[in-house]
Amino acid sequence: MMVISNLLRLEADWVIIDMHDFGLKEGPEHDNAIAVYWGLKACRNEPGAVLRFPQGTYHFRPEKATERFLYITNHDQGGTRRIAFPIAGFEGLTIDGQGSAFIFHGPMIPFLVEGSKGVTLKNVTVDWERPMFDQGTVAAVGDDWFDIRLRDGVEHEFRDNRLFFRFGGRMEPVWGLHDIDPATMAHAYGSGDRISWSSFARLSMEQAAPGVARVTGPIRHMPKEGHLIAMRFGRRENPGVFLKDSEDIRIERVTVHHAPGMGLVAQRCADIALERFDVKLRERSGRVVTATADAVHFTNCRGAIVIEHCLFENQLDDPCNVHGIYSGIVERLSDRTVLVRYLESMTIGIGVAEPGDTMRFVRRESLLGYAEGVVDDVSPINGTFVAVTFKEPLPDTIGEGDVLENATWNADLTVRHCTVRANRARGFLITTPGKVLLESNTISAPGAGIKISGDANSWYESGAVRDVTIRGNVFLDCNTCPDWGRAVIDIDPEIEEPERFDCYHRNIRIEDNTFRTFDTGLVYGRSVDGFTFRRNTIERPRHYPARGTQKHAIELTAARNVDIADNVCADGPGTALVGTDEYPIGGGKR
Amino acid sequence: MMVISNLLRLEADWVIIDMHDFGLKEGPEHDNAIAVYWGLKACRNEPGAVLRFPQGTYHFRPEKATERFLYITNHDQGGTRRIAFPIAGFEGLTIDGQGSAFIFHGPMIPFLVEGSKGVTLKNVTVDWERPMFDQGTVAAVGDDWFDIRLRDGVEHEFRDNRLFFRFGGRMEPVWGLHDIDPATMAHAYGSGDRISWSSFARLSMEQAAPGVARVTGPIRHMPKEGHLIAMRFGRRENPGVFLKDSEDIRIERVTVHHAPGMGLVAQRCADIALERFDVKLRERSGRVVTATADAVHFTNCRGAIVIEHCLFENQLDDPCNVHGIYSGIVERLSDRTVLVRYLESMTIGIGVAEPGDTMRFVRRESLLGYAEGVVDDVSPINGTFVAVTFKEPLPDTIGEGDVLENATWNADLTVRHCTVRANRARGFLITTPGKVLLESNTISAPGAGIKISGDANSWYESGAVRDVTIRGNVFLDCNTCPDWGRAVIDIDPEIEEPERFDCYHRNIRIEDNTFRTFDTGLVYGRSVDGFTFRRNTIERPRHYPARGTQKHAIELTAARNVDIADNVCADGPGTALVGTDEYPIGGGKR
Repeated sequence: MMVISNLLRLEADWVIIDMHDFGLKEGPEHDNAIAVYWGLKACRNEPGAVLRFPQGTYHFRPEKATERFLYITNHDQGGTRRIAFPIAGFEGLTIDGQGSAFIFHGPMIPFLVEGSKGVTLKNVTVDWERPMFDQGTVAAVGDDWFDIRLRDGVEHEFRDNRLFFRFGGRMEPVWGLHDIDPATMAHAYGSGDRISWSSFARLSMEQAAPGVARVTGPIRHMPKEGHLIAMRFGRRENPGVFLKDSEDIRIERVTVHHAPGMGLVAQRCADIALERFDVKLRERSGRVVTATADAVHFTNCRGAIVIEHCLFENQLDDPCNVHGIYSGIVERLSDRTVLVRYLESMTIGIGVAEPGDTMRFVRRESLLGYAEGVVDDVSPINGTFVAVTFKEPLPDTIGEGDVLENATWNADLTVRHCTVRANRARGFLITTPGKVLLESNTISAPGAGIKISGDANSWYESGAVRDVTIRGNVFLDCNTCPDWGRAVIDIDPEIEEPERFDCYHRNIRIEDNTFRTFDTGLVYGRSVDGFTFRRNTIERPRHYPARGTQKHAIELTAARNVDIADNVCADGPGTALVGTDEYPIGGGKR
Repeated sequence: MMVISNLLRLEADWVIIDMHDFGLKEGPEHDNAIAVYWGLKACRNEPGAVLRFPQGTYHFRPEKATERFLYITNHDQGGTRRIAFPIAGFEGLTIDGQGSAFIFHGPMIPFLVEGSKGVTLKNVTVDWERPMFDQGTVAAVGDDWFDIRLRDGVEHEFRDNRLFFRFGGRMEPVWGLHDIDPATMAHAYGSGDRISWSSFARLSMEQAAPGVARVTGPIRHMPKEGHLIAMRFGRRENPGVFLKDSEDIRIERVTVHHAPGMGLVAQRCADIALERFDVKLRERSGRVVTATADAVHFTNCRGAIVIEHCLFENQLDDPCNVHGIYSGIVERLSDRTVLVRYLESMTIGIGVAEPGDTMRFVRRESLLGYAEGVVDDVSPINGTFVAVTFKEPLPDTIGEGDVLENATWNADLTVRHCTVRANRARGFLITTPGKVLLESNTISAPGAGIKISGDANSWYESGAVRDVTIRGNVFLDCNTCPDWGRAVIDIDPEIEEPERFDCYHRNIRIEDNTFRTFDTGLVYGRSVDGFTFRRNTIERPRHYPARGTQKHAIELTAARNVDIADNVCADGPGTALVGTDEYPIGGGKR
């Protein structure tokens, strides 16, 4: 079965390698990890090879899958991962599922693309037989408790006031609950994270009756009877697709129904195209969650990120985040070398720079750069520390607590004809100085629909924007939940006193969009030089009570060169659309 | 401080690189991990460099130490390690401590030598500020309990019937107790592992009074009042020296006072010389334990292992083990490829073979090879599985459960003028077909002084011996503890019915030794072709009551070509030295 019997040269000089030749088998009793291993090996010396799957349903288990130690941006770190498709060091490779379903079991990464160029994944759906969440229905609600009816027959265990479900070989404790409104299949109005994370940690889950979990304790949000509850467990370790140190990657007609991590995550890659890459619920699965984290996430990438005709729904974090990272200057080791520390535990080890990159020296207080340097040598010491040597002597003015950002690895971003909905948290998180176009998308998020931030204090996500166009999109009800945003579009770099400094962000144009949303706030902005809000249509459906986080539709602080004009407001009674005192909506600068 | 100001060419063309130039600092407040990083970097392009430390006491912490994911033979697996001296890819390097003391903190490996050739470590002592064990004194003994007085002021915690001590950043639960007789500083007579491992798991440790732990439960061995108790905690992850995929390594005048793992471990290395490499108690430290596992351990090595003038004492496992591994044949993937599984969790991922190696196909029942093959390609899949492709078609007779051993990577072993004593478990464990000489050593172990085994069922340690000479050694009281051996020299391959098969071991000569030991059994042997026991002197001190595991001094089963003659027995009254029925001691074959 290792003989490659089926090499067909096409006109285009592509080598078609048929997975059938490597012992591929359908059915849950067959693990295809070894078959893929040989299939990829056969492609190794055939640039431009297409590894083709006969259409079918194929299962993959971690036991005999390839193992790698990996630092994956914005995932929980530690240990090795098992990988079904270890695409490392390839130049020119297409994986064509021809409409197949790939079903994974337990902790593993379906696709890793590392150190490769010209890789295409297409025509496949990704799912887990047993996803890394479970769900139940609110069966009863009391003053200070509620009951969740678990799925019939689901393996579970109550222990030490915790509820455990199986994932892979282990029973994992639930560490968060999410209240899903069955009418919208989205987070219930007002719910958010108020029964998850640290708020969950103070609650107890005990068996009220067989198959029924009772939640007690200081419940910050009480779900309604009949609502669905998504129950989170496990660590965020295994994305559906992980792209690393690669370029020219295309993902096309690939659907991720579930991933125990993000749908797709890329770090230090150049030129990525997603076309009909969907993170979506499997039809008739009854499930309320897709990926357990972001749909797509890009850290320290460059070139063009193009996302078109994608649907991102019901994942347990933001649909899209594009950012760099700020790393901390710990110590000057010589006149040209600094010891640098990764500041966020979820982005350790991903690579701060390579020789030839330009790094910007940034003050943490203002997030503004005060010097730049070209990297001569990089010495990774461990996941947390790296020594960076510059070609020229370091600036004299380096201060303790200053941070570095990579000025070379910044991507352009185009998102067109995409729909994001029903996920946890925010919509598009954009922190990149590249050219950004969000056009013709439909966006509804329980928090801000678009967030343009940047901070060197909490998530250490870098990338002041320079050129953002948000055009022709439809924003549906955003900010239905607390804590995830102030307005539909949040421009909120974490600078404590923005008035003291030059603006962080620049040139944000919001034009020709439709805002169809129940709340007052359309835009919150601070530290922006060049803000245009033109020809937008605002409608006020009454789907939810207004949350009133903002008094005004547009609230700007430390902003310059503002242009707000020609907006149309189809306003309902009692929810007046108003601008800030300085910038009334619908008109030019006062 | 990164400038190499001090390069002196000697006659021998060695480049002396002085660690002083890289920010090296004495004192526990200074971590020298980064300094060593730069020091090694400076040696990188200087084959034959000597990295020299001014004599002093230097501390190393894991925080800024180099990180690597490693599979280390016979250690607990999983996760990355921090390494103070990451000597990887060097050709010609000497680390000269010039008598310095290196003090380590928490979980880290002092020395890793990987993929290198011609590396010498010398003139340094290795210790931990806080070792990965603690110790106390038996303060009181009852019928079914005993109390341990902890060291004054030691940080500890009682929780859930367990006692916790700190190692690195974590509080670790004690998982084993060892009864140390202060008169000998060795395991007390009859103690062994009977209050450790699984026997410990059934015991409770609770606070009897401040600083006093009370042990209760089914106590299988009751220590005496005034005895010392070594308390084990933590995982076996970090050896003092780890040699991997390297050749021509010399360790000279290096003392390991402690390691949270083995003293030195080597896998797939060729030609290793240890000269005055001591694993020994630090004087006046009061400690009862050195390394928490074997003193030195060699897996799948080849060339010559030469160990001379070394002292291995008080470590918590065998002083020396030289072996190969049996790996399991899981599945025939093609006519030339098998999927192979590592069978012992502590030896996963270490590398079963490389192209060009000869592998032997072995039946598990007899441990005898039935075919050999030369490796064409090796594809590691993960820590547990590897695909091995042979140059020629596989033998037709491969059966399920058959195992493979590497016939190329087998070392010769010379041990001369060494002393081993007061450790846990056995003495020298020898399973290698290479030429073995143990000469002029002083050996006392609480189990067998020498064990020549081999098994494909429990530890999967391979290597039937072909040529072993045990000459001119002094064996002092061995087998003072239960469970660790039948006689002073145990030859016990795990073959259930050795009579059914050809002999596993061959040519073991035991000549001109002195056995000064209280118990009857001198040699237990099975499945040996060629056994000589000549000109040995046997003395019977009465230090302990005889254990009587053997009725006869020499007991042999399934042995051929036996020569027992000219032995001198200075026997004490009441402890008759007798041979087996077949082979009486002192005379030739009957």
